[in-house]
Order: sequence, then C-alpha cells, then structure tokens
Amino acid sequence: MDQYAVIDLLKNHRSIRKFTEEKLSDETIKMLVESAQSASTSSYVQAYTIIGVTDPEKKKALKEISTQPYVENNGHLFVFIADYRRHRDLSIEKDAPINFHLTEQFIVGTVDATLAAQNLAIAAESIGLGICYIGSLRNDMAKVIEILELPEGTFPLFGMVAGYPAHEGSIKERLPFEAVYHENTYQNLDAKKEDIEEYDKRISEYYKERTDGKREDTWSDQVIGMLNKKQRLDVDQVVKKQGFLRQ
Amino acid sequence: MDQYAVIDLLKNHRSIRKFTEEKLSDETIKMLVESAQSASTSSYVQAYTIIGVTDPEKKKALKEISTQPYVENNGHLFVFIADYRRHRDLSIEKDAPINFHLTEQFIVGTVDATLAAQNLAIAAESIGLGICYIGSLRNDMAKVIEILELPEGTFPLFGMVAGYPAHEGSIKERLPFEAVYHENTYQNLDAKKEDIEEYDKRISEYYKERTDGKREDTWSDQVIGMLNKKQRLDVDQVVKKQGFLRQ
Repeated sequence: MDQYAVIDLLKNHRSIRKFTEEKLSDETIKMLVESAQSASTSSYVQAYTIIGVTDPEKKKALKEISTQPYVENNGHLFVFIADYRRHRDLSIEKDAPINFHLTEQFIVGTVDATLAAQNLAIAAESIGLGICYIGSLRNDMAKVIEILELPEGTFPLFGMVAGYPAHEGSIKERLPFEAVYHENTYQNLDAKKEDIEEYDKRISEYYKERTDGKREDTWSDQVIGMLNKKQRLDVDQVVKKQGFLRQ
Repeated sequence: MDQYAVIDLLKNHRSIRKFTEEKLSDETIKMLVESAQSASTSSYVQAYTIIGVTDPEKKKALKEISTQPYVENNGHLFVFIADYRRHRDLSIEKDAPINFHLTEQFIVGTVDATLAAQNLAIAAESIGLGICYIGSLRNDMAKVIEILELPEGTFPLFGMVAGYPAHEGSIKERLPFEAVYHENTYQNLDAKKEDIEEYDKRISEYYKERTDGKREDTWSDQVIGMLNKKQRLDVDQVVKKQGFLRQ
C-alpha cells in the first residue's frame, strides 16, 4: 500500500447523501462494526452500542425526525448510542453502586461512541461506500429513544447512513490549518483573523459557483447564524431523564 | 491498495506507550492535523482546536496531571479542545447572541473534536507511528486549562501522544460483536449474557498470560470496579466555568 494512501483517503472525505438501492450485506455490516470496535476506548469501558435500523417503519419515523430523505433511502442506517446500561446491569447483579450520572461519564460515553463511529466511517469509505452523519436525529431525541426502545443508562448521539454512492459529493474546504492548530497555548481569534477572512472569501466563492450565484454566505455568516438561535433545548432534559448529567 | 488494507489497519490498532526519542517533523504534524480536519463536522461548525505541546515544562506539568510517563516522552503531544471561542468572538463582532452554553453544543463540541482526533490517530498509524489517547488529562481539567491558557468557550477533552513505537503493544480484544451491535431496538444485557460471560473468560486468560498469573480480572470486574467510585467530580464544575452545560 502506498505510504500515504490512507491519508489520501481521509482527505478525500465528502458526505454522500444519495445512494443506490443496494443494501449492505450482513458480512459487510459485521466487518464495519468490528472495525468500529477496534477504536480506542476510555479505560477499556466500551461505553457505546450501535443499532442497525432495517425496519422500514422505524426508518421512516427516523427520517421524519431528521427531515433528510437519505435517512430512509440508503444501504444501511446505523445509530450510535452512548451506553452505560450494560455496566449498570452488571453492577446491579453484584450490588455495586454505579456512577454513570456524572459529567465525566457523559464525556466518556460520547467520546467512546464517536471514536467507534469515525472508525466505521473510514472502514466504509475504504471499501468504496459513502457515508453521512445524521446529527439531525437530535431534533427529537425523546422520539428516537421511543423508536429504538432505549432504556435509562443510554442515549442516542447521532446516526450514520452508509451505502453505495449515487453521486460524487464534493469536498468542503476546512478552516485553515493555522486557525485550528495552535502551539503550547490557545491563540485567540485576533491572531488568526486574516486566515479566517481569506477562508471566508473562498467559502463564499464555493457556494456562488455551486448555486449560480444564489448563495454566497461565508463560514462566519453560517456559524453566527446558527449559534444565534437556541436550538434543541430539549436535549438537556432528555439526557437527564436517561440518567446522565445529573451531577 | 488491497481492498481491505484500511480495515486491517483499523483492526490492528493497539495503544503505544513507549516511543523512540525521534520527534515528529513539522511536515508530519501538518499532514496529521489536516487529516484530522477532513473528518465530518456537525453542520460545518468545526467546534474544536488542536494544541500541540512542545514546551518541556508544559509537557512535564501535563505528565504530572496524567501520571503517565509517555505524556512527557513521545514524538509529539496533541491536546484536543472543544472550542466555541472563535464562534463567540465572531458573534461578538456582529453584536449577535451566541448560545454555546446549551447541552446540544456540549455534545457538538465533544463529537467534533473526537471525530478529528480519531482521523489523526488513523493517519498516524497509517504511516507507521503509534498513538495513545490520554483521557487522564481530565484528572485535573482546571490545571490543563491554566497550562494551555484556555479561555471561556473552550475546554480540554483529552490528549493524544504520537511517535515512533519502541514496543509492539498488543491488541486488546473488544466486547463480542453480538453485544455491541443490536438490530432495530436496544437489547438488554440478559439477551447478550452468554456472549459477555465467554468474553470475560477470555479477558481473564489474557491478563493471566501477560502477568504470569498475577492478574486475572475480567472485563466485568474492571467496569464494576471503575464505576463503583465517583471520579473526576470537578469536571462538571470546570466545564460550567468555561461556559458550557449552563442550560
């Protein structure tokens, strides 16, 4: 394998939102999940579960939460769950207390599930599949919990669709290296200002070209607009109801 | 490249905790960070920063927090920061409100930083480097914030050491596929009980072999013991002080 082949694969990432009708085989699903499991895990705790959704009614219901048609139409739909339920059950058997309600464990569950997810994404892309993360399942976390029958000690973080790509997708330029990588201490925005201004110009051009001039917002416009609104206010209450962040 | 070469690489992951004295070159660091940046990001928000720590005094201070010698002795030390600071600064310039204090944004920052980290890990391993995540920086998050001068709107999630391996490491078997992957609905532990019992036996054997019989705990023993204790109780207060989880 060429020395930089994997790095080229990583840098070639783009979200895929249209798939052929071909479903992932059970063998492929198992290979992807096992790749996910090989990721690092905090103190070996493995605080996550992956749910594959194949039931057409459940997929439709999840699509309605997300509003994205590709949540229904894909090669396979994975949902990533932060999961201390099995640890809780093992502790109950031994009459041992279990402290997954701390903020520390919320971080651990979120990190563990996300490490696994990104391994799954890369494994999928390495065999020619396309993927897209589905953060929009958090539009209605309580409903996702109901659909997937998630007990206390678990909560759904995000989904991921995978499948055989029916379009090319396009690579979206990231923030300049200089803005994201700092040395020894945090550098405030002033120090990186020019880098971000240049980036904003390129992003505006990217949209202009792709929309025949209908759209020309910058990255800064987008994030300011997004964080302007208070969104997904129910997430806090739902994760607490599931037993987390109760410190 | 062989069809499954990347999946083989992922499955071959093991933590590396001893490195040669060779430092990563600036060129390699840039290549790894750019690979990290290519990971998916929630709604393009890119809510993270990566700090490379090269100052020997800072590395020593971080090693004291972690207690792990490889935090000081490695090819390079990265620290992953959930970061809404630059979004905050851009919003302040435009007199726009910014809502990073919601639980939703805590999830987004944690997920974005972790997706980037796992891409960096894989990029590093693909060019023959070894890595180890350093969750133990959360032993004293306030001190990490002081050392790296992290302003409100940011918090440190974990570190990662990378470098040229000076030992082989060993692959640690994960939970059985059947325990981690569920279909359509969450399956409780009862349904997976036998799988986990078999797994526990194998893990006990693994430790026995590697320690000449001195250690023979199971995975279940480990997680029960770990979650028995209330650890890192200060994490909650520190992330709130940094402006997060204030909903």
